[in-house]
Amino acid sequence: MNKQRQTSNGVGNIYFTVGPTQTHPKLGEYLNEGLEKGIYSISHRGKQFGELFTHTVSSLKTLLNIPPDFHVFFIGSATEGMELILENCAEDKSFHFVNGAFSKRFFRTAQELGKHPERLEVPAGEGFDMQKALIPKDTELVCITVNETSTGVSVNMPDIRALKLKHPGTLFAADIVSSVPYALVDWDAVDCAFFSVQKGFGMPSGLGVLIVNGACIGKSEQLKARGVNIGSFHNFSALLKYAGKQQTPETPNVMAIYVLGRVCDDYIEKGLASIQKETDEKARLLYAFLDASVRYPAFVKKEAWRSKTVIVAETPEGSATVLKRLSERGYIVGAGYGEFKDTHIRIGNFPMHKVEDVKKILKVLE
Amino acid sequence: MNKQRQTSNGVGNIYFTVGPTQTHPKLGEYLNEGLEKGIYSISHRGKQFGELFTHTVSSLKTLLNIPPDFHVFFIGSATEGMELILENCAEDKSFHFVNGAFSKRFFRTAQELGKHPERLEVPAGEGFDMQKALIPKDTELVCITVNETSTGVSVNMPDIRALKLKHPGTLFAADIVSSVPYALVDWDAVDCAFFSVQKGFGMPSGLGVLIVNGACIGKSEQLKARGVNIGSFHNFSALLKYAGKQQTPETPNVMAIYVLGRVCDDYIEKGLASIQKETDEKARLLYAFLDASVRYPAFVKKEAWRSKTVIVAETPEGSATVLKRLSERGYIVGAGYGEFKDTHIRIGNFPMHKVEDVKKILKVLE
Repeated sequence: MNKQRQTSNGVGNIYFTVGPTQTHPKLGEYLNEGLEKGIYSISHRGKQFGELFTHTVSSLKTLLNIPPDFHVFFIGSATEGMELILENCAEDKSFHFVNGAFSKRFFRTAQELGKHPERLEVPAGEGFDMQKALIPKDTELVCITVNETSTGVSVNMPDIRALKLKHPGTLFAADIVSSVPYALVDWDAVDCAFFSVQKGFGMPSGLGVLIVNGACIGKSEQLKARGVNIGSFHNFSALLKYAGKQQTPETPNVMAIYVLGRVCDDYIEKGLASIQKETDEKARLLYAFLDASVRYPAFVKKEAWRSKTVIVAETPEGSATVLKRLSERGYIVGAGYGEFKDTHIRIGNFPMHKVEDVKKILKVLE
Repeated sequence: MNKQRQTSNGVGNIYFTVGPTQTHPKLGEYLNEGLEKGIYSISHRGKQFGELFTHTVSSLKTLLNIPPDFHVFFIGSATEGMELILENCAEDKSFHFVNGAFSKRFFRTAQELGKHPERLEVPAGEGFDMQKALIPKDTELVCITVNETSTGVSVNMPDIRALKLKHPGTLFAADIVSSVPYALVDWDAVDCAFFSVQKGFGMPSGLGVLIVNGACIGKSEQLKARGVNIGSFHNFSALLKYAGKQQTPETPNVMAIYVLGRVCDDYIEKGLASIQKETDEKARLLYAFLDASVRYPAFVKKEAWRSKTVIVAETPEGSATVLKRLSERGYIVGAGYGEFKDTHIRIGNFPMHKVEDVKKILKVLE
């Protein structure tokens, strides 16, 4: 598996999709390593798994600058993260900033769970003037999608921080699915956050990571004591109890927890600053091209709202022909999301994606 | 990765644990194949994933003889299976056959979800006289752990069938975690069942499979219509809606869904009858040894209750020394579960385990 071409994955293709996306160049090596060490056979209640758990949590905390008093839980997906946060951090009232499919899913999940969420909704492609948001006094939880993967709009941490300062007694949840590791979280402003590993970490899907502070645990315990349904095996009490033993309530995706630790180690070695710089450079190239282009204008007009990791272009001629032209050269790029399937393309900009390939993509588009 | 020794996994060890356990001998090959085909990068909303989904479901249905009208859903773990079944198939009243840690977890999960479960509990190591069970008339769901992995006690399908005939209007759920693929389910008697892939399928953990019929879907829809909380992204309506498109609500563990399809293909080629025959032979060797042994008597005394896939022995001298003696020869066997940690050993008997290795283990124990 080590022999695979470093720049490509699959049958000669390079995936510039927004996740699942191009896998980490060393994925084959890491998977093989885990197999040879017997990691896919070890007990999730034993010492060896405990060490693995501890290593991955520690490496992730270092990489994402997570304060020591935050807890890291392993779950199935980011989608599960939405459910768990809503069950454990809000009895009835969450407030959602909605500007696309994933922020809307967060809102709808609250409804499905029988709660009464409120929202501030703006059109797709737009961001928020967060300071002007009227958040009802009885709001228990504010839910923010840091990077709206469906439209390529991002929210800045200083804006979240300013909002949190105005609502210190309210819990803040951040969907950081497609923004990590590039965009660091302000852990003073965010009480809990979640992501999945098939985007910025270049891993196969099947693992979600949930990061929560003591305030979230406290809220969950209050709800539990009052008989509110906070879920069963993955409620925060259960996750916390097992995390204290370097374990998970169920048999988890041990392979992915192992590989995540290895990818974090690799990113730490490379240096997050260097990853960020490269990401900025690729984003600059892409947006500069789109801004100069008549055929492919950037969907997000305002620079401050533009995501650096999910770049969305309008394709008035239809996305299918553009995607086809790119795929013929071995570049797999994402179609638009939902209603924009035929009129947008979405380009992932993650650590696995090389500047030289971005330049080649732009050449194909020219 | 193809060069790994066929009989061993890890640093020369062979895992006879009850799951996670010895991995399928072709696991490395399958993982590599998926990487080379680009499967870890494809979109879970695209055609290629749909084909993969369809193949795995179809292969699984063939192997486990699942009727065409049952639905196969992919979830995170068997533990999640318990939660989902209870949320979607019982508003308040489930009834549980409890004889060990996992059947108890099923019962407790119902309590955690705010329901009012009842149970018939017998001591660890014992099975049930199911026909004598007094199941209250208002029971919505009967929960049966076909193979109690903590103690090595199993329930026979004809007994479940007889009970179902007495309660045709009640849904029956079966935990088949450590019994598949060896023990086929009587799909006339069971409305839903779940398992995870790190046992009889020899895969890394991180994927659960949930199999449900129309009656379960109907019940779930009734509960939803009445405003009962049936969960969000993994409620049966959501799972069904996406399965109809050969998809999952969230980005799933695509790698594991792919590998599961390959393992099923392999088992179908080998023939389930042949796998069952080998399993019987290994179980016969193990129980014959234990029954003739003073130092390691079988924990389950009654033959009809004895699991063929999880064989538990008492270790009056303490389990630690036995486990150590075995591990020195490269055989990793499980300790007892929970309170039996120091006084039992548990031996997994799955398709990856070879008769010759069972004989060697018995030689070490002699």
